[in-house]
Amino acid sequence: MADYNAPLQDMRFILTDVFDAPSFWQTNENLAHVDIETVDMILEEMAKFSKNVLLPLNQSGDDEGARYQGDGVVTTPTGFKDAYQQYAESGWVGLGGNPEFGGQGFPKMVTMLTEEMMFTTNQSFALYPNLTVGATICLNAAASEAQKEKYLENLYSGIWSGTMCLTEPHAGTDLGIIKTKATPNDDGSYNISGTKIFITGGEHDLTENIIHLVLAKTPNAPEGSKGISLFLVPKFLVNDDGSLGARNKVAAGSIEHKMGIKASATCVMNFDGAQGWMVGAENTGLSSMFIMMNYERVTMGLQGLGGTELAYQNAAQYAVDRGQGRSDTQIQSPEKPADAIIYHADVRRMLLNAKANSEASRCFAMYVAKQLDTEKFSTDMEAAQAAATRVALLTPIAKAFLTDKAFEATVDCQQVFGGHGYIKEWGMEQIVRDTRIAQIYEGANGIQALDFLGRKVAKNDGKYLLNFLEEIRDFVTNMTADHAIKSATLKSADTIEQLTKTVLNNIGSRKSEINGCAVDFMHAAGYLCYAYMFAMMVEAANGKDGVFYDNKAKLADYFVARILPRLEAHAKMVEAGSDPIMSFDLDYFNQAKS
Amino acid sequence: MADYNAPLQDMRFILTDVFDAPSFWQTNENLAHVDIETVDMILEEMAKFSKNVLLPLNQSGDDEGARYQGDGVVTTPTGFKDAYQQYAESGWVGLGGNPEFGGQGFPKMVTMLTEEMMFTTNQSFALYPNLTVGATICLNAAASEAQKEKYLENLYSGIWSGTMCLTEPHAGTDLGIIKTKATPNDDGSYNISGTKIFITGGEHDLTENIIHLVLAKTPNAPEGSKGISLFLVPKFLVNDDGSLGARNKVAAGSIEHKMGIKASATCVMNFDGAQGWMVGAENTGLSSMFIMMNYERVTMGLQGLGGTELAYQNAAQYAVDRGQGRSDTQIQSPEKPADAIIYHADVRRMLLNAKANSEASRCFAMYVAKQLDTEKFSTDMEAAQAAATRVALLTPIAKAFLTDKAFEATVDCQQVFGGHGYIKEWGMEQIVRDTRIAQIYEGANGIQALDFLGRKVAKNDGKYLLNFLEEIRDFVTNMTADHAIKSATLKSADTIEQLTKTVLNNIGSRKSEINGCAVDFMHAAGYLCYAYMFAMMVEAANGKDGVFYDNKAKLADYFVARILPRLEAHAKMVEAGSDPIMSFDLDYFNQAKS
Repeated sequence: MADYNAPLQDMRFILTDVFDAPSFWQTNENLAHVDIETVDMILEEMAKFSKNVLLPLNQSGDDEGARYQGDGVVTTPTGFKDAYQQYAESGWVGLGGNPEFGGQGFPKMVTMLTEEMMFTTNQSFALYPNLTVGATICLNAAASEAQKEKYLENLYSGIWSGTMCLTEPHAGTDLGIIKTKATPNDDGSYNISGTKIFITGGEHDLTENIIHLVLAKTPNAPEGSKGISLFLVPKFLVNDDGSLGARNKVAAGSIEHKMGIKASATCVMNFDGAQGWMVGAENTGLSSMFIMMNYERVTMGLQGLGGTELAYQNAAQYAVDRGQGRSDTQIQSPEKPADAIIYHADVRRMLLNAKANSEASRCFAMYVAKQLDTEKFSTDMEAAQAAATRVALLTPIAKAFLTDKAFEATVDCQQVFGGHGYIKEWGMEQIVRDTRIAQIYEGANGIQALDFLGRKVAKNDGKYLLNFLEEIRDFVTNMTADHAIKSATLKSADTIEQLTKTVLNNIGSRKSEINGCAVDFMHAAGYLCYAYMFAMMVEAANGKDGVFYDNKAKLADYFVARILPRLEAHAKMVEAGSDPIMSFDLDYFNQAKS
Repeated sequence: MADYNAPLQDMRFILTDVFDAPSFWQTNENLAHVDIETVDMILEEMAKFSKNVLLPLNQSGDDEGARYQGDGVVTTPTGFKDAYQQYAESGWVGLGGNPEFGGQGFPKMVTMLTEEMMFTTNQSFALYPNLTVGATICLNAAASEAQKEKYLENLYSGIWSGTMCLTEPHAGTDLGIIKTKATPNDDGSYNISGTKIFITGGEHDLTENIIHLVLAKTPNAPEGSKGISLFLVPKFLVNDDGSLGARNKVAAGSIEHKMGIKASATCVMNFDGAQGWMVGAENTGLSSMFIMMNYERVTMGLQGLGGTELAYQNAAQYAVDRGQGRSDTQIQSPEKPADAIIYHADVRRMLLNAKANSEASRCFAMYVAKQLDTEKFSTDMEAAQAAATRVALLTPIAKAFLTDKAFEATVDCQQVFGGHGYIKEWGMEQIVRDTRIAQIYEGANGIQALDFLGRKVAKNDGKYLLNFLEEIRDFVTNMTADHAIKSATLKSADTIEQLTKTVLNNIGSRKSEINGCAVDFMHAAGYLCYAYMFAMMVEAANGKDGVFYDNKAKLADYFVARILPRLEAHAKMVEAGSDPIMSFDLDYFNQAKS
């Protein structure tokens, strides 16, 4: 079974040395209540909880899985209910919640680290409160005061949980074509009817009530995504005094059998005239979700980071313990029949790929978290607006690039185990299976890339991206450290700038150019983001004594030498454009005709 | 559930148009009995069998899995026994076997195509006869005439099956440290004692007897790999008249629970003084396996190809059928709420990655198969020797590069399905799980890369590789087709030549250079091999009428534009060398100390 120790030293390095969170909090009146001592305690508590409570349930949860017991009843694996109760009672669900309604008001820079630890130790478990947090963010942003008062406190306390009901059998990526209907009642509520699929935590036995946030169409709503409204549909109706009333007409019809995250109940939800209440204005359902989505997409990147971290820690230890063959340099363990495989450079290569991804993705998530916190908490409107722009630009990278690289990292770490990585015993294959979902849900990574290149780059003629490049160049140019990351980052920034011009030029003549170049463009930009993060980490470590800091520079060396060259390959593929993709007739792909 | 139609047109294109198998067979007296009409019939029969018998058992086999029933009894999933009986009775097991002992004598150029179809439709099932074939190749190469007479016929007929017992709990990659002991008896047999793990088909209910080929050490054998002998250990002893005798002291202790290929029984085999007979000379156990291994490693590449092909066919059809969003160019299906996702360039990009891998890997496997057949069947000793050299060089690429690219392809195809790719229903996640093993077993891909760069390139100062480059340049220079693949292949060959010099130069001063550069070097060389294959396919299609042939050129365009740029990235990583890997102290990786 996998082991884990929270990388608290790395987390503090990012939080304090790289991003100087204490100063950021002190200089912002809305965050002045946050102090590093409290945050340290929070991190240590979650380090213990995730190691001692969540990790032991990870493999058993995968084996047992969430189960559909018939009649709409879904049970979570043995131990999940107790763990959830401990989690909720410790106040973790509301850690980042609005203090007006019982939340604790901690910024994303803090909650991202607790989320990382949860996703590291139990991806399935982490999803239950994660969806609740998503629902609270959405409600906090879009709901009426009365709705907030009625629902938020019990969500923050974890007594109730939340879901996001978007996808339908025929409509996933394309929410504009959903069919779920909302018919108004005389009392201002609506009757919701339709089927939603892939609903994480749609039904389970962890909480007294489940609050579904449901996208549906009102009668005569405009077609497409402009005609979608958001509704709050509780599993049990809530009386005015806050007590639970009648069972609402919403129930799980089944749960999915999946590749991984098997302990997370992924439900088909049938709404059969269920009573619901509109959240926000009519036909603004999608925009009500945008703020939530930016947070959640970063969180998916953290799921990838979690998978990477658990895979890395266990693969590194296995490589130190497992003897096979002899070191290329000299016999290391003459008393044993073989040296540890950690002496083999190729094993280190796989481990360093994962380690580099872990550190760069944590740093990048923190960078985006700081922008999210600036957007939300800053009293300087200009700074908040600039941060919002940066969040818009980088969210798709935080979701898609981080999870793509995380999947690679987990596969690399599985490979370190040889055949032992393929069997269940060591837990490595589960990490690969669990982490895979993060590339798919919450907007598949191809869609994230389209969002990045289409909406966040091309739509403003590259302005957001060029601003970001300017920041990167400024930072690197002013670095005091002497390190190869400097020139590598500047060169990468030049490549991305040139590439942006190339794509913008080609769009006019090739209608599929954005669609056909998006993923490779996003990957090229993602590697630049990682380069920038390594530059920041090198600079933060520069001049500090100790092997911990020396290793930051070494890992950046590794990144420049053995990872970053991929940026140029992706750039070349973008330059080649969409024509070689679109030259095939439809019949080429149609198996019935090919 | 996944559907499948064998790509017979593509197979014939490779077999006939690209490699002109009929001429090859006619001009070689040992293969003159093979004619294309018979081969066509064989391919059509396997196309039917794999689609109608093996594919329907693929998903149910995964669900049910092989099961350990206690007391050494292992059962295969429902339907496997019947399917195996049909398979054996049709003579498939001995298709490539030695005709002297009941085999049918077909070359690898034919059996690779039937193997592909089996691995496409049921990777777990394919492994049972595949291990038998491996055992027969080994016996045919190393066993005494008496042993061949006693065992081969019933193995070729499929009445018995075979295994390869190499790995032990502490010894996988490093077979030099195995502990299994072989103590000589007075009658010339040996008593074999030890534990072997990860034994594919070690126990099952498909055949009357199981013939284990076991690596073990005789008393006073030299240490390491020079002291390993090979033994034949039947599950049931075989009487001189060929009838079955007593149960031998070998039994399955358990089976592994794995990420995939769940219907394949992966056994822990306990040898408790089991009676065995030495195959070949003492202490030559490993070299007895070399011929077998070259065949089997190509077959693992075919497993990857099979995974790619099934994933591609189903993802392509899903993309044609599934509507989401609208085409970037114009509305394609105004009568429907959405256009098919096949109109999205990014979906095509993922499909074309898989399609390119399918065609290039089939072509490359055929190239290596032709070399294997030349080595085995040619009466021209010089040609046979040249082919053997080429086989030695390219086998690790056929195994490792093909399976690495295949895994990527299956993940890409899974991604086309969005959330539907993550649930079991559509069968895509199974393909990913099943295909993953091919990167791990039969020599993990990192070991294959070490074999390539260390033994096959560096050890002869790059001579084998430079000869191969010469062939590539000759071919491309003499192409009549006018296509971008020509200059792209020549440029790639130059890069590989330069890279080889760079690595050979660096070896002297960096002891870990081969180990640290092997995988990236192998990937760079693999892309060159694919480029060469596309050049061959373009040339074979050149001047022929029809969209089928036009599409060969288009797919090569796609490869040059959107895949081949990765070669340069891998080359850059090789140039950067092993120093950035080896600069870390051991403690950096030791979780107890880090």
